[in-house]
Amino acid sequence: MAKNVGILATEIYFPPTCVQQEALEAHDGASKGKYTIGLGQDCMAFCTEVEDVISMSLTAVTSLLEKYKVDPKQIGRLEVGSETVIDKSKSIKTFLMQIFEKYGNTDIEGVDSTNACYGGTAALFNCVNWVESSSWDGRYGLVVCTDSAVYAEGPARPTGGAAAIAMLIGPDAPIAFESKFRGSHMSHVYDFYKPDLASEYPVVDGKLSQTCYLMALDTCYKYFCHKYEKSEGKQFSLSDADYIVFHSPYNKLVQKSFARLVFNDFTRNASSVDDITKEKLGPFSTLTGDESYQSRDLEKASQQVSKALYDAKVRPTTLIPKQVGNMYTASLYAAFVSLLHNKNSELAGKRVILFSYGSGLTSTMFSLRLHEGQHPFSLSNIATVMNVAGKLKSRHEFPPEKFVETMKLMEHRYGAKDFVTSKDCSLLSPGTYYLTEVDSMYRRFYAKKEGDCSACENGTVANGH
Amino acid sequence: MAKNVGILATEIYFPPTCVQQEALEAHDGASKGKYTIGLGQDCMAFCTEVEDVISMSLTAVTSLLEKYKVDPKQIGRLEVGSETVIDKSKSIKTFLMQIFEKYGNTDIEGVDSTNACYGGTAALFNCVNWVESSSWDGRYGLVVCTDSAVYAEGPARPTGGAAAIAMLIGPDAPIAFESKFRGSHMSHVYDFYKPDLASEYPVVDGKLSQTCYLMALDTCYKYFCHKYEKSEGKQFSLSDADYIVFHSPYNKLVQKSFARLVFNDFTRNASSVDDITKEKLGPFSTLTGDESYQSRDLEKASQQVSKALYDAKVRPTTLIPKQVGNMYTASLYAAFVSLLHNKNSELAGKRVILFSYGSGLTSTMFSLRLHEGQHPFSLSNIATVMNVAGKLKSRHEFPPEKFVETMKLMEHRYGAKDFVTSKDCSLLSPGTYYLTEVDSMYRRFYAKKEGDCSACENGTVANGH
Repeated sequence: MAKNVGILATEIYFPPTCVQQEALEAHDGASKGKYTIGLGQDCMAFCTEVEDVISMSLTAVTSLLEKYKVDPKQIGRLEVGSETVIDKSKSIKTFLMQIFEKYGNTDIEGVDSTNACYGGTAALFNCVNWVESSSWDGRYGLVVCTDSAVYAEGPARPTGGAAAIAMLIGPDAPIAFESKFRGSHMSHVYDFYKPDLASEYPVVDGKLSQTCYLMALDTCYKYFCHKYEKSEGKQFSLSDADYIVFHSPYNKLVQKSFARLVFNDFTRNASSVDDITKEKLGPFSTLTGDESYQSRDLEKASQQVSKALYDAKVRPTTLIPKQVGNMYTASLYAAFVSLLHNKNSELAGKRVILFSYGSGLTSTMFSLRLHEGQHPFSLSNIATVMNVAGKLKSRHEFPPEKFVETMKLMEHRYGAKDFVTSKDCSLLSPGTYYLTEVDSMYRRFYAKKEGDCSACENGTVANGH
Repeated sequence: MAKNVGILATEIYFPPTCVQQEALEAHDGASKGKYTIGLGQDCMAFCTEVEDVISMSLTAVTSLLEKYKVDPKQIGRLEVGSETVIDKSKSIKTFLMQIFEKYGNTDIEGVDSTNACYGGTAALFNCVNWVESSSWDGRYGLVVCTDSAVYAEGPARPTGGAAAIAMLIGPDAPIAFESKFRGSHMSHVYDFYKPDLASEYPVVDGKLSQTCYLMALDTCYKYFCHKYEKSEGKQFSLSDADYIVFHSPYNKLVQKSFARLVFNDFTRNASSVDDITKEKLGPFSTLTGDESYQSRDLEKASQQVSKALYDAKVRPTTLIPKQVGNMYTASLYAAFVSLLHNKNSELAGKRVILFSYGSGLTSTMFSLRLHEGQHPFSLSNIATVMNVAGKLKSRHEFPPEKFVETMKLMEHRYGAKDFVTSKDCSLLSPGTYYLTEVDSMYRRFYAKKEGDCSACENGTVANGH
């Protein structure tokens, strides 16, 4: 069986168009700090009429293949996680086949995986399992997470975002799975769903979804610890993880979630829990499960005692989710990419725990073990190639009015046919795909902005300034 | 690594409500034989307002667990293939979690896989790979294919159908994968797709879709043969397969497809091709690929020379697809189930080749090797448990007018909220789930028809007559 299977390389793409949360707060007449402190968000990316989940994934895949010099013929599996439905039958994966058909490679397994923000994790697990299975043919797998998160006007709107992430999968990876340590929790709930088929917007019960998220986190952590302890013969606690990466609909929930794990270690009586934590959380040890999800005092106390640990183990993962917003399936991996960006080679030898959550609900906590790896599939090269700082720096801030106007146009365009876009790609970097037309048969056409993609690596040539 | 991983058990459910194709022909004013001979179809099942893809899959999974006496706690992975979208974000898998949550089992990986009729195959491959991977925890996998195929009034309408199939996956299976023999062909085309999000009906280019299907078949067969020959050091031909199972949108395409494979063996100069075949197909050996897809003479000649082989290798797979119609993701597996029903224990030692096709497009040809197995996971018990003959016999024929009326109601209900159904389950067998209500928040509620499910195994008690 192939060994140390995992992620060899990653690429991230997010639209260059964004709106500042502080400006949006003011525009929406929300109280100051509601989005920036209340939600913990800084900025939000969004697709304009020339971008969508298909164009973003075309860009991310093409860029990954080019920048790591991977021959498209060497891809044997390609799968996509997304909850942004443009077609209910034809997968996004088939759109991506355009990249490979040019090279005569059509023997590529895999389709799209769907359950809210969890589809990318499902695709990732499937791809890793394929490499470990008897049907593996020795080629690379490719996993793509692509989503555009948009909400109707109202309190959920500032929790949008958009991005596509591509991950190359194979053996002897710098980012290897510790597959034996894994806990999942799946359940039938209606916390966030998309039953109104004609609308791009979800139906959301924000309060229920937050509780579901925290309950799923608790259960996954319980199973995860159980499996670790069964396999390793010793207790697991947060001290066994160097970094924890969370699915990040908004940063405040990530803060709460890490605090919740600390509370879990406290109630599990983990040896790593210090005396101050024991003292501060002691008063909450008699709460029932339900009470503990509702207690603001517990939330406050646990966040307080976990602050230093949060700064060390979680903060390095928060950059892109805070700057780009919720990216649904790409959200967890954008947090992981933030960690790669911030720490790159320092991560060699470290264990990273990830928590994936998709409403409805499906959730898994799993473990990765990192190594420096070999160029081009090394931690340092991955960080260089992705050029997160450059991509963030070269964005274009839209005033809230223009953002709202774009949302209105997009509502109108969702599910529509027989239109051409402005084809205005002036804000896009060279090498970016964009939507040009949807014909009378709903067929979608894309073009690629000319220019050398490698030229945008420093983030300044990208937009010509 | 787990050995002989594959299908341990299967269960099929299709609605008891159906319309005869001969009656539909007359009703539609089509020429006599257009649906029955032209399409090769006998009858078509459809969901009434109390059934949908969720209720059918609840029924199939519950029935499989009960009839094979599988403890719901022993399921470690559950995934669904479907192209019938009721919710764009919340997976059908999460609805099925209701079955397992009752038993305290929520640690079950897997979500939904999507690409037209191929989603079930993707789910099946994923599940088999999981059992062979390092993340397998020793429990069973469960794969569900569930779809309701409905078309707008017009020529495609008689190619509908509905069914759910559940398959239990694990090692030492009577139906084991030969994973090294596999050829896929994936491509970006618009032959059949569902871009009109508010409508349940697809956009279909029937002629293009048929050509895409045959081209995909050719390419998959080419890759399949290549891999077989590389691995086994000898040529593959149809004589190396005991049965061939095709995705079956309508039977006529299955007849054409098998003839096409015979034509492939002829052009490949396979040693198994007899002199009569060589003589009859000789005149077509100079056709270009494109010409060969359009040539009615080739179609006729190849069907003629392949008739005896079709009767031996394909006809035993056609019962359910002809009687129930196109079941999208379930279609290929309903054909395979027909073979299990017709041949059961005789299949021990046989090799079965399957061709899965999903428009858009994704396609794979793969190989299974069958063994009698151990009770309850034996070929003979699988055939007994599924009771295909009983299920077919106990159906209720609707006159075409009532079918059309049902379609109208279903159009109105698709994507709707805030309604209760008739809750009329008089036509359903005991143990069948049915839809009772969709509330003002689009939340769906189901009930299970009371009664002992085992009592309906002979197909007569089911509907009380």
